[in-house]
Amino acid sequence: MTENLHFTLEEYKQRVRRTQASMDRSGMEVLLVMDPANMNYLTGYDGWSFYVHQGVIVSLDREQPIWFGREQDSNGAKLTSWLPVDAIYGYPDEYVQSRYTHTMRWVADLLREKGLDGKSMGVEMDGYWFNARMHATLVEELPQAGLLDATNLVNWIRAIKSPAEIETMRQAARICEKVMQVAVDEIDVGVWEKDAAAKVCAAQIAGTKTFGGSSPAIFPIMPSAQRTSTAHLTYDPDRRYREGDVVLLELSGVRHRYHMPLSRTVYLGDPPEDLRKTAAGVVQGLEATLAFIRAGVTAEEVEAQWRRAIAHTGVVKPSRVGYAFGLNYVPDWGEHTISLRPGDKTVLEAGMTLHFMPGIWLDTYGFECSEPLLVTEQGCETFVDFERKLFVK
Amino acid sequence: MTENLHFTLEEYKQRVRRTQASMDRSGMEVLLVMDPANMNYLTGYDGWSFYVHQGVIVSLDREQPIWFGREQDSNGAKLTSWLPVDAIYGYPDEYVQSRYTHTMRWVADLLREKGLDGKSMGVEMDGYWFNARMHATLVEELPQAGLLDATNLVNWIRAIKSPAEIETMRQAARICEKVMQVAVDEIDVGVWEKDAAAKVCAAQIAGTKTFGGSSPAIFPIMPSAQRTSTAHLTYDPDRRYREGDVVLLELSGVRHRYHMPLSRTVYLGDPPEDLRKTAAGVVQGLEATLAFIRAGVTAEEVEAQWRRAIAHTGVVKPSRVGYAFGLNYVPDWGEHTISLRPGDKTVLEAGMTLHFMPGIWLDTYGFECSEPLLVTEQGCETFVDFERKLFVK
Repeated sequence: MTENLHFTLEEYKQRVRRTQASMDRSGMEVLLVMDPANMNYLTGYDGWSFYVHQGVIVSLDREQPIWFGREQDSNGAKLTSWLPVDAIYGYPDEYVQSRYTHTMRWVADLLREKGLDGKSMGVEMDGYWFNARMHATLVEELPQAGLLDATNLVNWIRAIKSPAEIETMRQAARICEKVMQVAVDEIDVGVWEKDAAAKVCAAQIAGTKTFGGSSPAIFPIMPSAQRTSTAHLTYDPDRRYREGDVVLLELSGVRHRYHMPLSRTVYLGDPPEDLRKTAAGVVQGLEATLAFIRAGVTAEEVEAQWRRAIAHTGVVKPSRVGYAFGLNYVPDWGEHTISLRPGDKTVLEAGMTLHFMPGIWLDTYGFECSEPLLVTEQGCETFVDFERKLFVK
Repeated sequence: MTENLHFTLEEYKQRVRRTQASMDRSGMEVLLVMDPANMNYLTGYDGWSFYVHQGVIVSLDREQPIWFGREQDSNGAKLTSWLPVDAIYGYPDEYVQSRYTHTMRWVADLLREKGLDGKSMGVEMDGYWFNARMHATLVEELPQAGLLDATNLVNWIRAIKSPAEIETMRQAARICEKVMQVAVDEIDVGVWEKDAAAKVCAAQIAGTKTFGGSSPAIFPIMPSAQRTSTAHLTYDPDRRYREGDVVLLELSGVRHRYHMPLSRTVYLGDPPEDLRKTAAGVVQGLEATLAFIRAGVTAEEVEAQWRRAIAHTGVVKPSRVGYAFGLNYVPDWGEHTISLRPGDKTVLEAGMTLHFMPGIWLDTYGFECSEPLLVTEQGCETFVDFERKLFVK
């Protein structure tokens, strides 16, 4: 049904047409989409059912994709997607985590029923949701189908956001500002790390007075002290913040699964001189890089500009400094398309959304200050209004 | 380092030995473990870094697994795992989501360096974390290695919990009771669904006065009204609860990534007679089934007992009624081993932990009332103290 959709029916149909055009260019008659963000993008389907096998099948000769999933989730597809009931197929529960059969046998039957079994078919080979057993089973079931690699095919369609998507992301930005403010306000000497994290999680969902948030694809990353010397650790559930702690905040506001990520850093006490210097260097480099970004420059040129801007500071950042983001589910809000790093030749276009994220992890602490942004013809617009500095408390 | 471990060093080594014994029985000299829960189980490693490729390599001739992951995450492995520094390998950032190379090429080099490239190797073919491209790349790089299917090999080792794990799960149960109580207390006519969900999320992390929780592998599932007619939808971020709403609650307390899931149902107003009857039938069937469970019965016998117990009520449940659970990360707290359903011949053993979860989704609403339990020699112990009924407000 269409009444629960977050975008117009025409927008969903346009997304499918753009996907079909990309399939056609790549010589794919059928595309098996198993990434839940791609499923949502094409159909609106939104449920925490991706822990069992599910997908949508796009074919060149059908305007509407076919949804398949576990029978008990098919009502969810009827409620949340624009697909008609006769494009929604549920498989029996005995296929779930079976040791005797496999959902891809059932999918092969569905493809045969639809006359799609002999077609050249794209599959998301290097995604999270198309595993080795699925591939082996499809090859066994459909030996005549030429399986082609469609990794990130839909993700690249997603790279340029529509005005309605940008509006949704602006709502996520309003949530993001509240979430980050809660974090900066709550973190203090003597406070349990878990209690600060709990308030951050609540802020993500409570959203604003007029609209709510959704669950983030990456749970709040908010390590303290020694745990800031590495990426991707979070709070210690049994520790209180202490004088001299650095706390990294890699948080997100989320609206209808569209993310708005942001990083900031808090220091409790009087920051050491090298941390102050790192912070000043990163913020200066960040601002010089933002001034450089516009439609027409390449992803690797953005990284090179960052490197030039911080060359005099001694800060070294060996990993990529940003990536495309948007609609997503766990485990990542990144879109796996554009990376701001040497070698990425992508020409930036208006409507692309990037998280410029120069995280620095040194041996004993880290510093993060990032900006999510929208590429425009004239330059770039940052989404979030939040001071760029080391927050000292 | 060992000071951040949640279990004794001996317990981790025992887990590795049991894994090696299972590998040996299956004819595997090497095992590539990419499931983050399995990585944590064997090494203690705990970070939200599973959105890039990472794993541990277990071989029959080494007491210690080898950890590999992104270079920027290797400090996290040093901080959270028991592995020595020389068993931790970080790959350069250029491998992350590369369009030109693949992390599995780097892993193949590592295997060659360790002399493990010609060995028979198990891979988690049907897991979330070993995708089709990884498999194809390994086959290409190591044509001489016999890749064997090790899906759920470590999961089956995890099926029987140690006393220390059970103690951790009892802590998760204390968090779970608080989380469910918050949900039942907060949900009411006129309350924004997002605001109730925010408080539930906060309770999951805040935990108890003396210890905190961790992020759940399944985000709170708490649909209302028509959205309860299907599995796996959650709150509507822009809706307030109304008189006549059914609200399903599928929540969890989590301690050090060990889950304690629980389902209950709330009705706002005077429940229709058929919902009352369904609730009474489910609770009665649940209690009759709990009285039946003990070490020595099979998983399918438990399901058959449930079916017998509810036969007179008219309630029909075509999907499995429970599964093994414990340590996990997104997207699922289930362990993918034991399913309570026809055909599952697993003989239950003391120390297994099961979520008996007879969720009913009818055309217009659902009802859920579940119990997480520990199988014992004499019977079973439920973990959580929370009334079994339809909560009416």
